[in-house]
Amino acid sequence: MSYFDAASSAPLHPVARQALTASLDEGWADPARLYREGRRARLLLDAAREAAAEMVGCRPDELVFDSSGTRAVHSGIAGALAGRRRTGTHLLVSAVEHSSVLHAAETHEAGGGTVSRVPVGRTGAVDPSGYAAALRPDTALACLQSANHEVGTEQPVAEVAGACRAAGVPLLVDAAQSLGWGRVDGDWSLLTASAHKWGGPAGVGLLVVRKGVRFAPPGPADERESGRAAGFQNIPAIVAAAASLRAVRAEAAAEAVRLRELTDRIRARVPSLVPDVEVVGDPARRLPGIVTFSCLYVDGETLLHELDRAGFSVSSGSSCTSSTLTPSHVLKAMGVLSEGNVRVSLPPGAAEEDVERFLSVLPDAVAAVRGKLGAPAAERPGAAVPGDSGSSGSSGDSGDSGDALVVDSLGKRCPVPVIELAKVIGDVPLGGTVRVLADDEAARLDIPAWCEMRGQEYVGEEPADRGAVYVVRRLA
Amino acid sequence: MSYFDAASSAPLHPVARQALTASLDEGWADPARLYREGRRARLLLDAAREAAAEMVGCRPDELVFDSSGTRAVHSGIAGALAGRRRTGTHLLVSAVEHSSVLHAAETHEAGGGTVSRVPVGRTGAVDPSGYAAALRPDTALACLQSANHEVGTEQPVAEVAGACRAAGVPLLVDAAQSLGWGRVDGDWSLLTASAHKWGGPAGVGLLVVRKGVRFAPPGPADERESGRAAGFQNIPAIVAAAASLRAVRAEAAAEAVRLRELTDRIRARVPSLVPDVEVVGDPARRLPGIVTFSCLYVDGETLLHELDRAGFSVSSGSSCTSSTLTPSHVLKAMGVLSEGNVRVSLPPGAAEEDVERFLSVLPDAVAAVRGKLGAPAAERPGAAVPGDSGSSGSSGDSGDSGDALVVDSLGKRCPVPVIELAKVIGDVPLGGTVRVLADDEAARLDIPAWCEMRGQEYVGEEPADRGAVYVVRRLA
Repeated sequence: MSYFDAASSAPLHPVARQALTASLDEGWADPARLYREGRRARLLLDAAREAAAEMVGCRPDELVFDSSGTRAVHSGIAGALAGRRRTGTHLLVSAVEHSSVLHAAETHEAGGGTVSRVPVGRTGAVDPSGYAAALRPDTALACLQSANHEVGTEQPVAEVAGACRAAGVPLLVDAAQSLGWGRVDGDWSLLTASAHKWGGPAGVGLLVVRKGVRFAPPGPADERESGRAAGFQNIPAIVAAAASLRAVRAEAAAEAVRLRELTDRIRARVPSLVPDVEVVGDPARRLPGIVTFSCLYVDGETLLHELDRAGFSVSSGSSCTSSTLTPSHVLKAMGVLSEGNVRVSLPPGAAEEDVERFLSVLPDAVAAVRGKLGAPAAERPGAAVPGDSGSSGSSGDSGDSGDALVVDSLGKRCPVPVIELAKVIGDVPLGGTVRVLADDEAARLDIPAWCEMRGQEYVGEEPADRGAVYVVRRLA
Repeated sequence: MSYFDAASSAPLHPVARQALTASLDEGWADPARLYREGRRARLLLDAAREAAAEMVGCRPDELVFDSSGTRAVHSGIAGALAGRRRTGTHLLVSAVEHSSVLHAAETHEAGGGTVSRVPVGRTGAVDPSGYAAALRPDTALACLQSANHEVGTEQPVAEVAGACRAAGVPLLVDAAQSLGWGRVDGDWSLLTASAHKWGGPAGVGLLVVRKGVRFAPPGPADERESGRAAGFQNIPAIVAAAASLRAVRAEAAAEAVRLRELTDRIRARVPSLVPDVEVVGDPARRLPGIVTFSCLYVDGETLLHELDRAGFSVSSGSSCTSSTLTPSHVLKAMGVLSEGNVRVSLPPGAAEEDVERFLSVLPDAVAAVRGKLGAPAAERPGAAVPGDSGSSGSSGDSGDSGDALVVDSLGKRCPVPVIELAKVIGDVPLGGTVRVLADDEAARLDIPAWCEMRGQEYVGEEPADRGAVYVVRRLA
């Protein structure tokens, strides 16, 4: 079994396990108490805080331990916004932040604040000048992840931090995906992270608030962790988090080179091994261990099941896998194909032979899913599509200058609307159009992406009583 | 070394340690993922939820795991208040709730809500009819602890729950101190608890919301734990929490009898071993392992240090030990002496010989502190106090019908104002009064308590430019 979903949660690092079990005997008492057991717990907590602060590159009194990265993000955003209430209520985030950031932004909006979402380019990165241009006089806080959790693209944090500093706006960096690899460069003001992403235990988030940053902790008062993270500290887990961060950092430089070679291999070989694949994310400015691609005519959930049966644990941003019925907001913001999406995130220590085995089973897994769905045969982008007018849900009337061809995909989930479009495109005269009626949210993303991949023209979207009509012109 | 502060945090139960380490290998993955490691994590989480629910006496889908008891309380109160917003914004709590409840109440007040604090009697329990009488048509939520954390007194939860049910008001029970001993009886609506109080690990709180209770989770959306506790679950800790709850329950009946005998022994013998002591809390309706007493003329912090040096870890509700400079709100609400306060809370397994050794070292420890402070010699309540007009800060003028005697204790911390009062009481003619000027918050509580203990009359409090004047009439 190969676990390739480190971006969700990394397996516990041996140092974390050792530190956790070693501190169970000394770390259970209340560190605020003055007796012996309390003093011992306090010593462990203080040492862990110093170690974590050194890894982050901050003062120990700027760092508090929260119960998760999500909670650290929620508190960091709410506290920074409240601390700058007099300046304004505008919150700036990138469109590809982690859901914890976006949900905190929604809460801010629900409370009467305003939120701007800075778009990203096709690789998933914000443009620093575009980000800077979105800063306003009433901007209370700006947020930018250090690197994206779904596609691995690194954000231009240092440049954005400089622009924020110049504008007098604090920048909160969600460093959940990158802190194990190194410090976050640049003059940021707040930083959050999550220990289980770097091989530490669950139950530990970091919240760093630089001295001088206005911060008003949200929620009921609590004296622990400088009043910024309520509740009794989980000291054994905190000790394990700090120790494992130090350990993964010691291995980071060498492991980054090794994993980057393996993910480069996946990036290079998947498109030749599997037809109709789009590899997404920045090819160079990216985390070492993450590579993401999407497969045309594939249901992401079924593909994950196939890969799981073959012994590989990966995740997907396809809406097919999600109970929310909407595709990944990251893929959407990037404007790339979402169907058949697979994120491979290698944990440190991932074996080369496992990556090779993954590359060897992937083609059959994708082919199996496509076969079940009756997807069109593989072909090179731009090649002519064999006509298949017998497909259900389509009706052609070539007499009406080709525009009467309608594919009715109402009620069908991704990737079926795209499959049905592909099956009829051969019936459309060159220069003529076909209209796809669909109510699956993924169609809005995947039909334009399909057009780009296949050299067809995406004309646009029209309203419909139910769902929407997506208009495609056949060019090839 | 004897650890007698289980009410703060219990040492990790062996079953918790075993379950924690055993589940580190299977419990680190994301339980929301569909691959093998995720399914294993989900199985552990589901099993832990079932076990915890059985111990609580609720349905598994009514129980979520939060990151601490404090967070569970904060979320439980905010969520229940938000869910009943249309009914009103009145929150009812007892005056002796845990600070997490009282801080949540303060946040509610700061947000425009109203809060009533139901007083308690001298044993620390609310009167059920008094509690019921405080329910209003606009009461959105009522809160009552199952048992008090500082003095061990059990609250009449079942009766109060009945009154709340009759009034259509949900009752939240903070069961942090009692859940290890047994289920909470009565028809409550919400319940919170904290694993490290029963010997589970830190990092796990329980929040139970009965079906049918209106509840609107506070804070940013998060799909985990039914949307009621944000952040990645700490599954090994959750497994350990559930396993240890089951284990301590299996031992609870026998251990309750044993610990109750030991705390009965402390209750009975401390007043004869140490002069001028008040044992507080209900002698019968109380938790098995907690006994609390206060010692006249003693600085709580110094006493804790003496006991720590003698090998005993206990805690105190004296303001002398606290950075907030206010005495325990619990002792204040009970109207009992706060100075020299000691809470002994025995963990399961506490040894009889350690309790005996505690009783043997306590008299000398108290005497040492009193000696350092120059406290008056011990005597029986009501006995005449030897005159000591040479004490600093007092000035007598017996010509003015005794009323001119003023003890100036401004700037002096507890127990000094009481010591200075005791030193001059002999100078006051029988029937005459003495005025103590003090700005230490504890004086407001401890001077009346001293009067009650010594058979003197507490006349009342008068305003002063700084602090307050406490007037005492000599009766004995």
